Amino acid sequence: MGVPQFKEIHRAYGFDEISIVPGPVTVNPDQVDPSFKLGSLTLKIPFLASAMDAVVGPRFAVLMHQMGGLGVMNLEGLQTRYDNAEDVLERIRKASQEEATPLLQKLYAAPLKEELIGRRVREIKEQGAVCAVSITPQNTKRFAPLAVEAGADIIVVQSTVTTARHVSKSYRGLIFSEFMEAMKVPVIVGNCATYDAARELMETGIDGVLVGVGPGAACTTREVVGVGVPQVTATLDCAAAREEYFHRTGRYVAVITDGGMRTGGDICKAIVSGADAVMLGTTFAQTEEAPGRGYNWGMATSHLELPRGTRVTVGTQGTLKQILYGPTSVTNGTQNLVNALKVGMGMLGAFTIRDFQQAELTFAPAIKTEGKHYQLGF
Amino acid sequence: MGVPQFKEIHRAYGFDEISIVPGPVTVNPDQVDPSFKLGSLTLKIPFLASAMDAVVGPRFAVLMHQMGGLGVMNLEGLQTRYDNAEDVLERIRKASQEEATPLLQKLYAAPLKEELIGRRVREIKEQGAVCAVSITPQNTKRFAPLAVEAGADIIVVQSTVTTARHVSKSYRGLIFSEFMEAMKVPVIVGNCATYDAARELMETGIDGVLVGVGPGAACTTREVVGVGVPQVTATLDCAAAREEYFHRTGRYVAVITDGGMRTGGDICKAIVSGADAVMLGTTFAQTEEAPGRGYNWGMATSHLELPRGTRVTVGTQGTLKQILYGPTSVTNGTQNLVNALKVGMGMLGAFTIRDFQQAELTFAPAIKTEGKHYQLGF
Amino acid sequence: MGVPQFKEIHRAYGFDEISIVPGPVTVNPDQVDPSFKLGSLTLKIPFLASAMDAVVGPRFAVLMHQMGGLGVMNLEGLQTRYDNAEDVLERIRKASQEEATPLLQKLYAAPLKEELIGRRVREIKEQGAVCAVSITPQNTKRFAPLAVEAGADIIVVQSTVTTARHVSKSYRGLIFSEFMEAMKVPVIVGNCATYDAARELMETGIDGVLVGVGPGAACTTREVVGVGVPQVTATLDCAAAREEYFHRTGRYVAVITDGGMRTGGDICKAIVSGADAVMLGTTFAQTEEAPGRGYNWGMATSHLELPRGTRVTVGTQGTLKQILYGPTSVTNGTQNLVNALKVGMGMLGAFTIRDFQQAELTFAPAIKTEGKHYQLGF
Amino acid sequence: MGVPQFKEIHRAYGFDEISIVPGPVTVNPDQVDPSFKLGSLTLKIPFLASAMDAVVGPRFAVLMHQMGGLGVMNLEGLQTRYDNAEDVLERIRKASQEEATPLLQKLYAAPLKEELIGRRVREIKEQGAVCAVSITPQNTKRFAPLAVEAGADIIVVQSTVTTARHVSKSYRGLIFSEFMEAMKVPVIVGNCATYDAARELMETGIDGVLVGVGPGAACTTREVVGVGVPQVTATLDCAAAREEYFHRTGRYVAVITDGGMRTGGDICKAIVSGADAVMLGTTFAQTEEAPGRGYNWGMATSHLELPRGTRVTVGTQGTLKQILYGPTSVTNGTQNLVNALKVGMGMLGAFTIRDFQQAELTFAPAIKTEGKHYQLGF
Repeated sequence: MGVPQFKEIHRAYGFDEISIVPGPVTVNPDQVDPSFKLGSLTLKIPFLASAMDAVVGPRFAVLMHQMGGLGVMNLEGLQTRYDNAEDVLERIRKASQEEATPLLQKLYAAPLKEELIGRRVREIKEQGAVCAVSITPQNTKRFAPLAVEAGADIIVVQSTVTTARHVSKSYRGLIFSEFMEAMKVPVIVGNCATYDAARELMETGIDGVLVGVGPGAACTTREVVGVGVPQVTATLDCAAAREEYFHRTGRYVAVITDGGMRTGGDICKAIVSGADAVMLGTTFAQTEEAPGRGYNWGMATSHLELPRGTRVTVGTQGTLKQILYGPTSVTNGTQNLVNALKVGMGMLGAFTIRDFQQAELTFAPAIKTEGKHYQLGF
Repeated sequence: MGVPQFKEIHRAYGFDEISIVPGPVTVNPDQVDPSFKLGSLTLKIPFLASAMDAVVGPRFAVLMHQMGGLGVMNLEGLQTRYDNAEDVLERIRKASQEEATPLLQKLYAAPLKEELIGRRVREIKEQGAVCAVSITPQNTKRFAPLAVEAGADIIVVQSTVTTARHVSKSYRGLIFSEFMEAMKVPVIVGNCATYDAARELMETGIDGVLVGVGPGAACTTREVVGVGVPQVTATLDCAAAREEYFHRTGRYVAVITDGGMRTGGDICKAIVSGADAVMLGTTFAQTEEAPGRGYNWGMATSHLELPRGTRVTVGTQGTLKQILYGPTSVTNGTQNLVNALKVGMGMLGAFTIRDFQQAELTFAPAIKTEGKHYQLGF
Repeated sequence: MGVPQFKEIHRAYGFDEISIVPGPVTVNPDQVDPSFKLGSLTLKIPFLASAMDAVVGPRFAVLMHQMGGLGVMNLEGLQTRYDNAEDVLERIRKASQEEATPLLQKLYAAPLKEELIGRRVREIKEQGAVCAVSITPQNTKRFAPLAVEAGADIIVVQSTVTTARHVSKSYRGLIFSEFMEAMKVPVIVGNCATYDAARELMETGIDGVLVGVGPGAACTTREVVGVGVPQVTATLDCAAAREEYFHRTGRYVAVITDGGMRTGGDICKAIVSGADAVMLGTTFAQTEEAPGRGYNWGMATSHLELPRGTRVTVGTQGTLKQILYGPTSVTNGTQNLVNALKVGMGMLGAFTIRDFQQAELTFAPAIKTEGKHYQLGF
Repeated sequence: MGVPQFKEIHRAYGFDEISIVPGPVTVNPDQVDPSFKLGSLTLKIPFLASAMDAVVGPRFAVLMHQMGGLGVMNLEGLQTRYDNAEDVLERIRKASQEEATPLLQKLYAAPLKEELIGRRVREIKEQGAVCAVSITPQNTKRFAPLAVEAGADIIVVQSTVTTARHVSKSYRGLIFSEFMEAMKVPVIVGNCATYDAARELMETGIDGVLVGVGPGAACTTREVVGVGVPQVTATLDCAAAREEYFHRTGRYVAVITDGGMRTGGDICKAIVSGADAVMLGTTFAQTEEAPGRGYNWGMATSHLELPRGTRVTVGTQGTLKQILYGPTSVTNGTQNLVNALKVGMGMLGAFTIRDFQQAELTFAPAIKTEGKHYQLGF
């Protein structure tokens, strides 16, 4: 308004606001390859399951491997606090809605047992599956070596916001560059949501970043502390950092969009925004095989004084196989996700995920209009 | 934000977001001419009915002709799978909601009978009507000559996204330029939604393009694979390709907006966005004479692994004559569409569709506001 | 997107999307003067009542005059079709909802009686009130002289879209410049919504323009033919035309925003957008003294083939005096409108309407957010 | 649109439309300091309670002090009209909804008793608390000296819109520069919402500005007179004025965002927008200790002819201690506000409020989309 500005504000985009623009070439879906590479590992499909107790236990991790994806097991949840995690999960599932919160608060107050780390890793490895585990930055130096020694193939270092520069007086912060020198397996770090934060993490030598901080307007992080970036913009910015880093160093760091996706359309949009893979929580919590059996609850490592332990009912939508590969009878895009991805790639003439990242996006918000609905696009 | 960008995102517009700006000249509606030319054919009104089994059969095609428009018959639906398509349609209409999906899946699994192509075309031609038929790219080389031989006047080659360059290993893609050399009747191809795709198709010698890929936020294509362009922007972009091609070559290729329109207002906006004609599905499915009799269902040629066969209730709003020419007692713009178009043209001082395309558009979103409604503009 | 554009699309604004920005000076409301000048006439308050049968009859026109505003009487409605219009109004008010539409259609089919024009004008003049009458362009040359002869002070020429250049073969269009030469009283013409249309009308010598074509998303004009401009942008554009014309010619043509306003806030915004006065329909239809007594219905002169005659219940909110001057117990801004205007002017440091037009506007849409409401700004 | 513009319109932002962008550094929340300085006073937490009778009485002011914040007492409300304000508050709380409005109108019509000013101030000071009182501009010259004499530490001069230049014929306007010369305690003035108005006020020598005029779309000011600026933009603009003034003069004037905040997220956003502190009304009205006990009502000093005296039910959410410091079991961000602020500061690597003001904001509107909700960001 002709006066000095305190700061500039740019537009950020979420999945519901953008759309993929079809191009001038198409490819038959049976010719596309949606595989995802991380270090020397290759996943047939670029799908990761979130490190949540209601989503990934040893058995689900094995199943994800068999389906071509990757389940990440939380090393600071129930699996490493209780010898018999299965019984504990059963108690949570059986609790009434009123009992659930105090029960969760009590169960997650139990101490971590370091000896269980190796046992859980081996339960996955013994089934011939790739094993990925998640640790918070505070515990990484202590737990990561134990997991790797037991055979873990991938270490995920994860908290709400993880930066290459953390200031703390209560513990000596994790120095990623030092940590990376010691690690012999691929390391994924997150979450981050911006160009600068992603690039600083990449400089430390890590192999992948998880993208996603308060992606949705209803996210707890966004409500409680006002912090968050819609996922399309977060992914675009971290992908821009990857490109810059790749062109400068020749090293390709994977960008994995984590959270906010519900449909095949959202997953396609994440990849066109620059992601190499996606991490899904609720979607996998809704499979019949998920440990939550229709329930989900937040990560154990929430902020000290802010609420935790809310159990939500997510319901069960089908087997993991159906969710990923169909067949499906629903038309809202929440099932048959791998085929949706392949059809989307075909529509854009993309043979690979890297090709698909080159597609164009348009800003086309799904604004609710006054008493009027779009005709279905038969 | 001062950092490199992975890609740029531009705004795309849908019907509910824009409005036609009145100009400094007006014309009496009785002096406007909304006719539409395609090759040597002229339609009195620029209205096409979608190639869906619930919308266009031979009888409805004849009726559309009598009303001045054009019904496009699907050559890969029930009409060419069953000798007595009328009986089959009756079974679908009589099925309960639970029976409908398995019934549709079964009925559309029946093989196409090439001998029925000629018969259906003749049923239309014998009534003196213009005959337009729709074929998927895969079957075009085989079916189009049969249809033309039987008398078809217009060939429509249609799939969700059709490009001049399709890569396939399972069949040799249709080469439009080769195909056009052999064809003696006008060919319309679609759907497309962008400048580049439309221009490449125009270069092959086709006579019209159908515009519309995932136009609405609730479209299956948009939900399942994230691909789509709101119709105003898609039409504007394809119209820009037409203008560029026309100025360069002197050949005028028709732009036909397909899908997403519900009211006379939407139709007027499509034309001001650059369309020469519009193709409507649900609107015509809602006429008393439509084969669906108040039901509608998706095209038979859906993606292999994604759901198909959902029957939706669209209801019946009146006769085709009433929908097109009134009289009407509803004020929401869904009836009396031809007069609405003529009144709109008059308000903008447009004698022809080509004049109407020159009107100005404004971005005026119908955002739902907090507990407040606009006063009616009496 | 790097390709040629078919046309540019600019943003247009409605009342709910903008807000008036307070400035660095304030004035006590008791020092502001909201009067409105039109030719040699001065209204104490810049409020006009719409030329609708449910709003303005001779008695209401007199009452509006006594309150400091102006009621415009429709010369082509019931008042000039029936000797005893009061009885006819009573029949409409007493009709059941089902009877209303056919009754309205029948009543408005009665012929206009030219002899009633003078009688209605005199009914207003005999009470010492300023008399303004509304005529459609088709009938202006015939009716305007009759009205003026009987004493009418202001002629309003009004249709949905009125331009200085209208093409018709059924009647010789009204040539405003010729008409203006013959007229000795101020003439207001509308409706228009753009810079060019307003300027062309001003060039013909008229004294005021009515601004408003399909202002709201739910307007019939917008739904049925897709034509419309949100009122803030329409007013800004017509005000820009007035300024250009005023600076060039020294003649000041009034800009009157017509339609779409419900609250004092909307009225203030219309004036800050450049209006000199506002015309309200529903607001006055809701007064106890309005002929509609809680009902309202559209203008008799609707489009030939499009629906007309819908009666809507608007309810009664209070006396005209209460609506304009309070006191009020409602806090939603729909009552005590004159005081709201004066308080708004004071907050902006504006002594006159012309001062108030200089205030700044900001785009601050009232988007409905997810399950969250703003705290009241006590 | 290629034609002259009457005025430019810029985008303004509210809390629901923006989000804080995480940066490349994080800090442990136990290391951040959210204190707020005003003159020689330091508040442990940057929270002020609004000068409303339902929020701050002498007892609540003392409690706010004990909690580290500041309650501002209205010197023109019930506390200075009635010897026994407690009884009067009890009558308001016990009134039925129908009785409430006339009761409030009657109670606030009682005359102000100057002798009560000193008594109320002393009630606060005797408990060892910092005492801040609010006065309207009209009464400031008369009441402020009385309050200061009795020991008041901070004077707040407040009306809906307060400018350095007010024109009035009914009383000689307050000249802030003269007033400031006489005052020996810090003075906060408001409300304002723009760069120019804030800078002019700062030039007069005041110590803080309250920011907020019609911040929300549902605000009475916005509805009734159309005036208002969304809080993020208002805060950004006033903060820009503070920076300009600070760089030019070396004197730092506090910017206090007043109104429109409900959650910890909103409070964090206000500070990142440039605020040094926040003033909350409804939030504190909802504490068990608030004089309104679950009710709230508008300021006594409303506009003469516009409605006042509406009592609204806000409910009780917990003790002041719980609202500020937790623990909480709700996850919507409305409780545990101080910890939310500290966690937010930590996530952005901010040691102080001044650091936190440097964070980046993004425009990420929480648009309600069609039948689709974001997955929770676990």
